[in-house]
Amino acid sequence: MKDSEFDIITHYFARQAIHRPDVIAGIGDDGALLKIAAGKELVVSMDTLVEGVHFLSGTDPHAIGHKAMAVNLSDLAAMGAVPAWATLSLTMPEADPHWLEGFSDGLFTLARRFDVQLIGGDLTQGPLSITLQAHGLVPAGASLRRSGARAGDYIYVTGTLGDAGLGLHLTGALRVEDEPDAFITGRLLRPEPRIAEGIILRSLARAAIDISDGLLADLHHILDSSGVGAVLQVDRVPRSRAFDQILDRVFPDKPELRDDLPLVAGDDYELCFTVPSENRAAVEQQLGRLSGCTPIGMIVAEPGLHCQRKEGVDYQPSREGYEHFRAMQRRDDHG
Amino acid sequence: MKDSEFDIITHYFARQAIHRPDVIAGIGDDGALLKIAAGKELVVSMDTLVEGVHFLSGTDPHAIGHKAMAVNLSDLAAMGAVPAWATLSLTMPEADPHWLEGFSDGLFTLARRFDVQLIGGDLTQGPLSITLQAHGLVPAGASLRRSGARAGDYIYVTGTLGDAGLGLHLTGALRVEDEPDAFITGRLLRPEPRIAEGIILRSLARAAIDISDGLLADLHHILDSSGVGAVLQVDRVPRSRAFDQILDRVFPDKPELRDDLPLVAGDDYELCFTVPSENRAAVEQQLGRLSGCTPIGMIVAEPGLHCQRKEGVDYQPSREGYEHFRAMQRRDDHG
Repeated sequence: MKDSEFDIITHYFARQAIHRPDVIAGIGDDGALLKIAAGKELVVSMDTLVEGVHFLSGTDPHAIGHKAMAVNLSDLAAMGAVPAWATLSLTMPEADPHWLEGFSDGLFTLARRFDVQLIGGDLTQGPLSITLQAHGLVPAGASLRRSGARAGDYIYVTGTLGDAGLGLHLTGALRVEDEPDAFITGRLLRPEPRIAEGIILRSLARAAIDISDGLLADLHHILDSSGVGAVLQVDRVPRSRAFDQILDRVFPDKPELRDDLPLVAGDDYELCFTVPSENRAAVEQQLGRLSGCTPIGMIVAEPGLHCQRKEGVDYQPSREGYEHFRAMQRRDDHG
Repeated sequence: MKDSEFDIITHYFARQAIHRPDVIAGIGDDGALLKIAAGKELVVSMDTLVEGVHFLSGTDPHAIGHKAMAVNLSDLAAMGAVPAWATLSLTMPEADPHWLEGFSDGLFTLARRFDVQLIGGDLTQGPLSITLQAHGLVPAGASLRRSGARAGDYIYVTGTLGDAGLGLHLTGALRVEDEPDAFITGRLLRPEPRIAEGIILRSLARAAIDISDGLLADLHHILDSSGVGAVLQVDRVPRSRAFDQILDRVFPDKPELRDDLPLVAGDDYELCFTVPSENRAAVEQQLGRLSGCTPIGMIVAEPGLHCQRKEGVDYQPSREGYEHFRAMQRRDDHG
């Protein structure tokens, strides 16, 4: 691939429109050279997508480019960081112009929205795989962490949950022309990093994480890091209208999926965060103008995560549903 | 791989001894959180190694771990940066404890020598592939670039050239017990990033690059970036004693390799740099205590790269040798 590497870089990756003033040197030297504004801390996140593991062969390259960028920006969002730069390692069996055109377009379309400049990386020959590292900046001391939750905090999530998991489960069975199906496909293929939400939450939330592995798994990370427990109100976990419509249509005989998918399926890339009582009104008001947010439970002092029905009885996701979607997710996991 | 991911991280990658005070959060949150000292600029470099492309199946995992770190630190060296942090994306078909033990040991042994902390990354299932990003720091405005060479500068290289290329060519034919063979194998498998040299050169050299693609190819990058040309004295390009000994033994009938390999074979990870006349004595004296350095030519105003014999006649690497080693290198290229 070497002899064409420079041509590929020039044609597909150096044509991006973004030139940030804090990039002293981007692509084209031994490394990129970057200015960090005074009073800022650097946040970095790296994720890899492998063909046949995280996406099927034949997936629209535009969606792969979008997702490679989105999953990393989502990690920055969960820290309250403002995105700045990305590095990309792209491994391909051969340089396919059609694929590169779609991939780079998907990647840069999202990057431009968040003023992210591609500053370097590597191109190698091998099985198709994409590793992207996103770099963001946050005012010193202001970042959101997993470890700040305290007993009495309210647990919130942005947007709706279970959509991407349903989309992954139904790949091939969705009807492209139907509106709810198109919504669900979009949720799976083009997750939206909650950057604006993360920035707002810096001063209002005590802990945050992005939901890539499923609500229960990711909330567990907050609980473990913070040394606390939680009671989750299963009936309050927000679902999209499209999610309910498609479940009614495709799985009328599996009502348990309605409760379980939003708890255990990953890939929605919404934020889960905890808020002290006095900040609830501000959070709901400010996030209401963006993706919205929904209170789904409380942080408690005693470790452990308990799911409850609205009548107060304990609830456990069906083992079948849980195992099923954990297995799916293992295929589609990117840490 | 998901369910064992956390265990793997804990066992092999979180046991490292390095904890830098500028790492506010390393492995274990959505992203790593880093302090950049006032007056510093950030340098980043990302390289990928793919099994079957950059290393053969069965290569000692300790050497792969070393090399993944070394090739990135070499890029930082060429910018004059001091290494600080690394992120690692490791894609493996399965979690093999023996492989992980060797790989992480090779990686951390080199990382510790340069005070580099692993701050995050990703573990995924798939064909064996390693992407590492190194992060370094350099005083604002002091970095070495490819673009600073001027007519009249002397061209230097550190160490000796052609060793790794010879090692790659002779894989399987080297005699482990012989000293020159062991030296050549070490040059291929465990390249030494010239960090101390890069730091010294910040104030003495005008342009620098690390030699990963071969002297001619990499010097061309300096010439293109700087808008200048060069005359290279082929007979002055430094070779190791082991290189000459093995060539005499294995290829007595191919004398052209002695001249051509050091010019076109990559992977030595030495530095090539240009020095104004008034700094030559200081460079030779200060680098003499480290890897050594050798003047091999001059920067000239007119674009183009001309190789000369000591009697002043033009020299071109034999087409055969050039094509042969370019083909080899294409297999082993990592940008």
